[in-house]
Amino acid sequence: MIIAKARAVDGPDQQFRSAEIKRRDLDTSDVLIEIKYAGICHSDIHTAHGDWGPVNYPLVPGHEIAGIVTDVGTGVSKYKVGDRVGVGCMVDSCGECDNCRKGEEQYCLKGNIQTYAGVDKYGEPTQGGYSTHIVVTEDFVVRIPDNITLDAAAPLLCAGITTYSPLHHWGAGPGKKVAVVGMGGLGHMAVKIAHAMGAEVTVLSQSLSKKEDGLQFGAAHYYATSEPETFEKLAGSFDLMINTVSASIDINAYLSLLTLDGTIVNVGAPAEPLSVQVFSLIGHRRSFAGSMIGGIRETQEMLDFCAEHNIAPNIEVISADQIDEAYKRVLASDVKYRFVIDTSTI
Amino acid sequence: MIIAKARAVDGPDQQFRSAEIKRRDLDTSDVLIEIKYAGICHSDIHTAHGDWGPVNYPLVPGHEIAGIVTDVGTGVSKYKVGDRVGVGCMVDSCGECDNCRKGEEQYCLKGNIQTYAGVDKYGEPTQGGYSTHIVVTEDFVVRIPDNITLDAAAPLLCAGITTYSPLHHWGAGPGKKVAVVGMGGLGHMAVKIAHAMGAEVTVLSQSLSKKEDGLQFGAAHYYATSEPETFEKLAGSFDLMINTVSASIDINAYLSLLTLDGTIVNVGAPAEPLSVQVFSLIGHRRSFAGSMIGGIRETQEMLDFCAEHNIAPNIEVISADQIDEAYKRVLASDVKYRFVIDTSTI
Repeated sequence: MIIAKARAVDGPDQQFRSAEIKRRDLDTSDVLIEIKYAGICHSDIHTAHGDWGPVNYPLVPGHEIAGIVTDVGTGVSKYKVGDRVGVGCMVDSCGECDNCRKGEEQYCLKGNIQTYAGVDKYGEPTQGGYSTHIVVTEDFVVRIPDNITLDAAAPLLCAGITTYSPLHHWGAGPGKKVAVVGMGGLGHMAVKIAHAMGAEVTVLSQSLSKKEDGLQFGAAHYYATSEPETFEKLAGSFDLMINTVSASIDINAYLSLLTLDGTIVNVGAPAEPLSVQVFSLIGHRRSFAGSMIGGIRETQEMLDFCAEHNIAPNIEVISADQIDEAYKRVLASDVKYRFVIDTSTI
Repeated sequence: MIIAKARAVDGPDQQFRSAEIKRRDLDTSDVLIEIKYAGICHSDIHTAHGDWGPVNYPLVPGHEIAGIVTDVGTGVSKYKVGDRVGVGCMVDSCGECDNCRKGEEQYCLKGNIQTYAGVDKYGEPTQGGYSTHIVVTEDFVVRIPDNITLDAAAPLLCAGITTYSPLHHWGAGPGKKVAVVGMGGLGHMAVKIAHAMGAEVTVLSQSLSKKEDGLQFGAAHYYATSEPETFEKLAGSFDLMINTVSASIDINAYLSLLTLDGTIVNVGAPAEPLSVQVFSLIGHRRSFAGSMIGGIRETQEMLDFCAEHNIAPNIEVISADQIDEAYKRVLASDVKYRFVIDTSTI
């Protein structure tokens, strides 16, 4: 049994506290990782607050994990002590279903095992990255390229792959007009990645307050969705739109911005259903789609792509004592663009 | 000026009456067609009844037209007198926009000119196929292959292309599981075409009353959507679903039947918006899309495909005096599977 230090929360309205949690002894295929940095994802906040249903507290969130391998099981072949590695939103899956065999473990038909708030194959609750150590089967560990610092690598494991995967899947690249809706943690990564893929990127944000940043990240255009003329001006413009906003939006207004055969992909989901006028789809053979993180092989591909193109998230590194404050600031959209916990302060 | 006999309706609650309508004199690129048969599409009924907004009466519906060329303009190169030809839902488009240049005239950015209830480029209202003659620019005329009878050809011009186009666009073929929702005029064509493309076809119909027909048309499976266990049993099954039902459906229940990367395509649109739970899309990277008829080149491709595979709609040929009765029977779903007017009775 391995004891790790962690920051845990005991209920929807509670503050984070210091905790000790158990990590399992290494099975043959397991890797022990000393966590160096853990990003704070909006999903952490939703889960900690119980927004998405009942949670087994105490809960240690965190699925944007970067660290160093400090021990390996006897059967581990991919990693050795000292390797720089990451763990994202999943720590296991069935490995046998059609989707797992395609390398799309995020869509495992038996349900993948989430990094926290899940139950592992030994029947134990999973606990996430706001912690000093984690044990993960090597197949769900990815390698962090040398030229990406560990603090910057952490948010790539969720915000990076969640945006890279649909951009890649729907063919963002030269000659394609891509719109990114929302410029928070996910949105700012979507802009950088789509630009690096060669697409012409437009940001659609509620206001122009982050316009300078957006253009610096690689956007060619930046519009405020609070201005109705934006929707008139951009009608029928985009091949692909990545909607990073989880709040409810007027989906028909956004669909009208797609060109023939265009697709809008939601990477987040509002709690309430969206009301789709089917004529909006039929008019130009448009599609409304969804996408969820990405597979492990694709996550490695994303990290290698970011290394090759010198892409890193903009982060604000905080100490473990600042998690509660950081949550408040994320909810107030007061972060540019991702908080990352220095886990040495846990 | 050419005078054609027709059947016209004077208002939402009126019966059809005999009428004489004017067809323009042949311009250089025009073809004069003696109409032999005209199919009755559900859209005719919606338009005649004013369901889709105000209509300029008197109205002559009909956009499933099959006939014989009886005269051609001086610049016509594709057709000659005696040719067997068809006209579908459009009679013209701008020809210059991105979509027209791609051969997707149905998505003309300036709006194509509909076969009836439109306004042609000379500023005159267009009148449809419940008529003895029509004048159409040759680029919007298609050739009916010799082994398709003219009465059977008529419904292919709308019901055929409306289902062929999304099946082709989304890759129905060997190894693909395709569901057809609804087995009316469009649905029964979708079954035949998808089967001929090599897909494994399932019909999802409200009841099992047409099961025998469905299996004969090429469906491998047939389920009643009125039985809740249908949705449990078929969860995650289909690569592609063609929804031919214009009435409102529980779209989330249907989305749950799609496999990874599956798409449901609406070819009709309910007046009311559909309420989409975005988690239904994100869960398996599913898409909800729409499709509208098909381009002219693709319409010719569809006719040639139907000729090659001996596909024809099941029709009930009626006389012009039976149009009102036929409308009532369509609304009561009492037609197997398309009414076709013998226009010699006009």
